[in-house]
Amino acid sequence: MKSVAVMGATGAVGLEMLRTLERRNFPVGKIKLLASKRSVGRTLEFRGEQVPVEELTEHSFGGVEIVLASAGASVSKVFAPAAVKAGAVVVDNTSAFRMEPDVPLVVPEVNAHKIKEHHGIIANPNCSTIQMVMVLKPLHDAARIKRVVVSTYQAVSGAGMKAMDELEKETAALLRGETYTRSIFPYQIAFNVIPQIPQSNAFGPNGYSTEEMKMVNETKKIMGDDSIRVTATTVRVPVFRGHSEAVNIETERKLTADAARRLLSKAPGVVVQDDLSQQLYPLAIHAAGKFETFVGRIREDISQPNGLDLWVVSDNLLKGAALNAVQIAELL
Amino acid sequence: MKSVAVMGATGAVGLEMLRTLERRNFPVGKIKLLASKRSVGRTLEFRGEQVPVEELTEHSFGGVEIVLASAGASVSKVFAPAAVKAGAVVVDNTSAFRMEPDVPLVVPEVNAHKIKEHHGIIANPNCSTIQMVMVLKPLHDAARIKRVVVSTYQAVSGAGMKAMDELEKETAALLRGETYTRSIFPYQIAFNVIPQIPQSNAFGPNGYSTEEMKMVNETKKIMGDDSIRVTATTVRVPVFRGHSEAVNIETERKLTADAARRLLSKAPGVVVQDDLSQQLYPLAIHAAGKFETFVGRIREDISQPNGLDLWVVSDNLLKGAALNAVQIAELL
Repeated sequence: MKSVAVMGATGAVGLEMLRTLERRNFPVGKIKLLASKRSVGRTLEFRGEQVPVEELTEHSFGGVEIVLASAGASVSKVFAPAAVKAGAVVVDNTSAFRMEPDVPLVVPEVNAHKIKEHHGIIANPNCSTIQMVMVLKPLHDAARIKRVVVSTYQAVSGAGMKAMDELEKETAALLRGETYTRSIFPYQIAFNVIPQIPQSNAFGPNGYSTEEMKMVNETKKIMGDDSIRVTATTVRVPVFRGHSEAVNIETERKLTADAARRLLSKAPGVVVQDDLSQQLYPLAIHAAGKFETFVGRIREDISQPNGLDLWVVSDNLLKGAALNAVQIAELL
Repeated sequence: MKSVAVMGATGAVGLEMLRTLERRNFPVGKIKLLASKRSVGRTLEFRGEQVPVEELTEHSFGGVEIVLASAGASVSKVFAPAAVKAGAVVVDNTSAFRMEPDVPLVVPEVNAHKIKEHHGIIANPNCSTIQMVMVLKPLHDAARIKRVVVSTYQAVSGAGMKAMDELEKETAALLRGETYTRSIFPYQIAFNVIPQIPQSNAFGPNGYSTEEMKMVNETKKIMGDDSIRVTATTVRVPVFRGHSEAVNIETERKLTADAARRLLSKAPGVVVQDDLSQQLYPLAIHAAGKFETFVGRIREDISQPNGLDLWVVSDNLLKGAALNAVQIAELL
């Protein structure tokens, strides 16, 4: 039995971490729910009991063995080192330490062996990257991926619970013919798509957004192959849960669509949903609440000799965040 | 002054054809509104007058000089030849004749010179293809495009007025916690994205959808260059009007992002919206109702030496359909 703390317990990912610990029967001895001061006084249910939320401080970690952190990168930068100092191992869902050379960046189905190299912190990758590498890995092992062109269709829950609330309220207001005052997204998200993630300070000098560069750089690190070239366009869509991705790959060796389907159907955590005669392909609304990464629309790219097009969908709060973090904790 | 007939006048594109003829001050002498029998009895406003809808028959075209057709491919296959026989020139917005070798497929800003080769029918390309070639053409002229990888975010109005109604009603029902019985889309479109266009009989033996193969084949024909290789993933999103596209291109000669911006800012019908410091990029909600094709997020592709990523948005009912057809009629 392990003593576990959840940092950012009241957030969209934090709540899913609690549900995932329950669903996976994680051997939790004691649980500590940490959040900012303004959540103190609230309780959250865990295994049928109401657990009070405590204020996150540097002194929160006495006796804690595992910290699941999802309270934002700036919070992790301060409190993850404090937790490590107190003897805990931190599985950090934020971007704070992902590209640090001595911090493993882990998707268990792809590079579980990296976990043992940790010095107290293990980073959980970005949601849109996790589901993509789940599908890339078996194809890379079989045929070596040279280049990836990905366009994403990302759910608003990736921006937190307030963003989900904004989509719902803005949609309802527009249907009533009323205006809505936004606080999260830079533009109307209801009945629109926005090619900017995250919502603020998104763009770097090369014109890529932070989210896009995460997909470029984290993919190389998780796959352990800096030669994989990636370009990405990341787009927010008016969906509550479940990121969808159109992924085009170029491989060194030819893979037929059938061969890719066979490889993916054997891949752990991946479910092939690909029967066009039945109009069967992955959908965000079907992936919501599920642990797996779904792939379909698998076809040979007619624009290059060794290429595939794929459609990849997963619940961004689960495999993209809470589940992947709990899986790492299970392996610790 | 020209005698003009609109086939499919009561549809989403037909109504926009009437508005576009008005907005462009097209020299309409007489106007004839043709639709199926069930629309007879309705009137539609044109230049302040109520014009009755007539039933489309093979005898509808006496004295008509220009037919703007948008009543579906099966209707065009029957009635476009009848109109040509009666002496009219048909600008056909359906897919019926687009790939016929002796039918010009025209986007005026790209290949207006093809119009004069017509034998009575000029085809208007697919909506998602038109806005893409508007942006590809000036880049191709400058640097020769070798390959295109495009992912689309297509508005429901591409599937007609009933599809717009379905998005609105389904969204409202879901927000009330009620279920909704769909008649257009194969799956819930509210708060979801669907990687299938069109709604039925979408997929061919190579795994591409009809819409995707339109983008592949029509691009080559309009650009007049069969060597341009294209792969596409076309996706329906819960947006009423305005298709968005993430377009990745590989060129023979290097184009910097600045050079591409300069070329595109001089391209007719194209508006560059690309200032990341102001979070300025094209959006479907801003393109709706506008004639132009908007492009932004222009950046050098970090995954290949000679590549660009672009975000292209236009109103699928206007430049993607009605406007392009009226522009062709203007050139006749």
